[in-house]
Amino acid sequence: MPDKNLIKKFKEIMGDNVWTDEKDIMCYSYDAAPGEQCPPDFVVRPETYDEVSSVIKLCNAENIPIITRGAGTNLSGGTVPMTRGGCVLLTTGLNKILEINTEDMYAVVQSGVVTADLAAAVAEHGLLYPPDPGSMKSSTIGGNVAENAGGLRALKYGVTNDYLMGTKFFDTEGNLIISGGKTVKLVTGFNLNGLMVSYEGLLGIMVEHIMKIVPPPQASKPMMVIFDDIMNACRAVSQIIANKVTPATLELMDSFTIKTVEEAAKIGLPVNADGLLLIEVDGHPAAVEDEFQIVKKICSELGGEVHVANNAEERDKIWEARRKALSSLARLRPTLILEDATVPRSKIPEMMQAIKDITEKYNLTIGTFGHAGDGNLHPTILTDKRDTEEMARVHQAVDDIFDTALNLGGTISGEHGIGSAKAKYLEREVGKGTIEYMRRLKAGVDPKNLLNPHKMGL
Amino acid sequence: MPDKNLIKKFKEIMGDNVWTDEKDIMCYSYDAAPGEQCPPDFVVRPETYDEVSSVIKLCNAENIPIITRGAGTNLSGGTVPMTRGGCVLLTTGLNKILEINTEDMYAVVQSGVVTADLAAAVAEHGLLYPPDPGSMKSSTIGGNVAENAGGLRALKYGVTNDYLMGTKFFDTEGNLIISGGKTVKLVTGFNLNGLMVSYEGLLGIMVEHIMKIVPPPQASKPMMVIFDDIMNACRAVSQIIANKVTPATLELMDSFTIKTVEEAAKIGLPVNADGLLLIEVDGHPAAVEDEFQIVKKICSELGGEVHVANNAEERDKIWEARRKALSSLARLRPTLILEDATVPRSKIPEMMQAIKDITEKYNLTIGTFGHAGDGNLHPTILTDKRDTEEMARVHQAVDDIFDTALNLGGTISGEHGIGSAKAKYLEREVGKGTIEYMRRLKAGVDPKNLLNPHKMGL
Repeated sequence: MPDKNLIKKFKEIMGDNVWTDEKDIMCYSYDAAPGEQCPPDFVVRPETYDEVSSVIKLCNAENIPIITRGAGTNLSGGTVPMTRGGCVLLTTGLNKILEINTEDMYAVVQSGVVTADLAAAVAEHGLLYPPDPGSMKSSTIGGNVAENAGGLRALKYGVTNDYLMGTKFFDTEGNLIISGGKTVKLVTGFNLNGLMVSYEGLLGIMVEHIMKIVPPPQASKPMMVIFDDIMNACRAVSQIIANKVTPATLELMDSFTIKTVEEAAKIGLPVNADGLLLIEVDGHPAAVEDEFQIVKKICSELGGEVHVANNAEERDKIWEARRKALSSLARLRPTLILEDATVPRSKIPEMMQAIKDITEKYNLTIGTFGHAGDGNLHPTILTDKRDTEEMARVHQAVDDIFDTALNLGGTISGEHGIGSAKAKYLEREVGKGTIEYMRRLKAGVDPKNLLNPHKMGL
Repeated sequence: MPDKNLIKKFKEIMGDNVWTDEKDIMCYSYDAAPGEQCPPDFVVRPETYDEVSSVIKLCNAENIPIITRGAGTNLSGGTVPMTRGGCVLLTTGLNKILEINTEDMYAVVQSGVVTADLAAAVAEHGLLYPPDPGSMKSSTIGGNVAENAGGLRALKYGVTNDYLMGTKFFDTEGNLIISGGKTVKLVTGFNLNGLMVSYEGLLGIMVEHIMKIVPPPQASKPMMVIFDDIMNACRAVSQIIANKVTPATLELMDSFTIKTVEEAAKIGLPVNADGLLLIEVDGHPAAVEDEFQIVKKICSELGGEVHVANNAEERDKIWEARRKALSSLARLRPTLILEDATVPRSKIPEMMQAIKDITEKYNLTIGTFGHAGDGNLHPTILTDKRDTEEMARVHQAVDDIFDTALNLGGTISGEHGIGSAKAKYLEREVGKGTIEYMRRLKAGVDPKNLLNPHKMGL
């Protein structure tokens, strides 16, 4: 706990937006990843860029670590202090949409703007901000950039990285750094925008973003396809992609997840299905119809029963089913471990089979859903962290899941990041040299290692 | 010139692929940007990753700068030694296409593979590698990544950055660094892929890339639109984008360029036109037809005369006209200065007017063409660097062009990079703090500043 004189200095900058009471800071020892880390010494919530700069300068002078945090919805423990306490810097006070430009199709937003608020504001102008992570009703754009958030539409529309045109951020000395801009092409110096994507708060403190927006599709056709063998659902995914159809969305749910969502949400899901595909094709009406016919043929030949949503209500039901997957599973056991191992898309059937085998081998409860079209499955382990014996099996299962993904040419994280949760697995994928290179990059711009220290093992 | 013993050490690694004779090294004091810089002390052309690693280790031990070079087609003096001589490391010996995966839609290529060779190899499988920079017949994929090359199709399909899934590169100590992979989503550690994009050889030495490939469009409609007032051509560009049509290609040529291309190539261009738009819409046949009607209506209402290419020969003529613009202009005077100031797309009419005014104000010969749909114009100044008085006016004109682009919310470089040619203008766009941040990043991973030193002013 920093002494009173020091806190007084922060209050001189920030007024009441400095919190030190235990009740105010305890919740910042958690985020959406399982397990607590360590509470910060204090929390600040700046509302202006000057405040951000002054806080950084004071933290730097006093060697106080800074952990930047938006809504804390990240799933890899990226926004929680690890061992040194320090200052959690909340971006939620920087929450203004500064500009929506419909001619040049971009929006300028502060880092604390909630993703769904940006999407809604853009929609009012008849345009679309595509990235739609599961947590979009509370997640912030800054957090989305810091983690390179994906979403249900990522298959066709890409991830947050594909929409970031510009960033303003502060370095550890409180200087404002400008990257990118309002043009669709720009190569002025290093691609610092690209570096901020999935940087997890380790190389600066972001305050503002220019995000690309796009015209919405003219038409779309959402559907649910019911399979009595989930392996056929997986095969359908690979075949759809191989047949050059790129649906906006192509999501998978296994039988355990279907039953669990239905119990929680009562939306009429087929509880006897072994697997579901939730698919939406969109674009020009003629293209939608053509793509629908291809999807229907592939799914039918693999025994899938295709149900098209005929109105907005039926469509909402399909996506509600998918969006409720995580929260429904979370109700069942005290601890939920959500993985996002990702493989090249043609390997989805092999990955699914491996997850089934691992579930059986370690006698665990695992519900699997996810962005199958991206090769990105979310095997979700339901457990209780107080049960040491079961947790040992959980860790072995996670190990096996990562090894399988890597053996199939995949990655340990498609969209959730490394943070504290996956730091120990990083070397397995990228090797020592890459981690050392990352460490040197960070040391160049953050020699005291004050920015979110120890995350990614750095 | 390094002493004989040192050269002997390099020959022990590389055999005959070390060149020191003046006749062999002089051409490496030039690239596609105007003006010579300084010849290297020697040139190496490794053919294996082990050779690359060994060369780097020896250069590091002996404090020899390394300037990585592919085909040297860059337009900002990025691949030429500036003041210190050193080792030019040619990537052209690393020229294998290692894998084309049609299921998961990626290609693995070495950095020295020629862009057009990759495009052709991918086309044989019925797929498309979209980035098509003007120099694609000789440029390399490594160079395209290092400069984030654009091309004629960038408007709809994006630039090289949008296709880079993975990179292998060496650090200054000769360690292999791995970034990205074969999955469509990946957030495993820092986005080093993103950092390599437009890094201009300053942060490592790239040897291998995983590039996304895509299904080709089902249909396309190329057309040439003739305007008797180029300002109306510019207005048409803005209106097409504002009407939510994104052509694959939307290129502009001014009257001076039209006449010059026609003189050089004799392809039957309308030499009395004040401006041309070269447009191609593509996608689903029904979408192509709809978009064509919108484009036609907008152009016609602005006085444009629309000529659709009815067969492959007519189509080739349209794109030959555009691809010959630079080389045709280059024939007229000894020195060609090609700018790529870029503005938000709605500002194209204002930018074009400013270029016309600047041409008149400084009494210069400027031909303008470029990727108007991207807001990326190429005002091309024809001059003679031996004429000191004219060159003074040229420098003032370039200054004015950059100031105009920045005042319109644009950038000093859309796709050509900074290199040595634009280093002195960089601060005007991004400010001192950003350059200092870049310097620190570089110092972290290249403490001796051996990798392409002094480029971007670093």
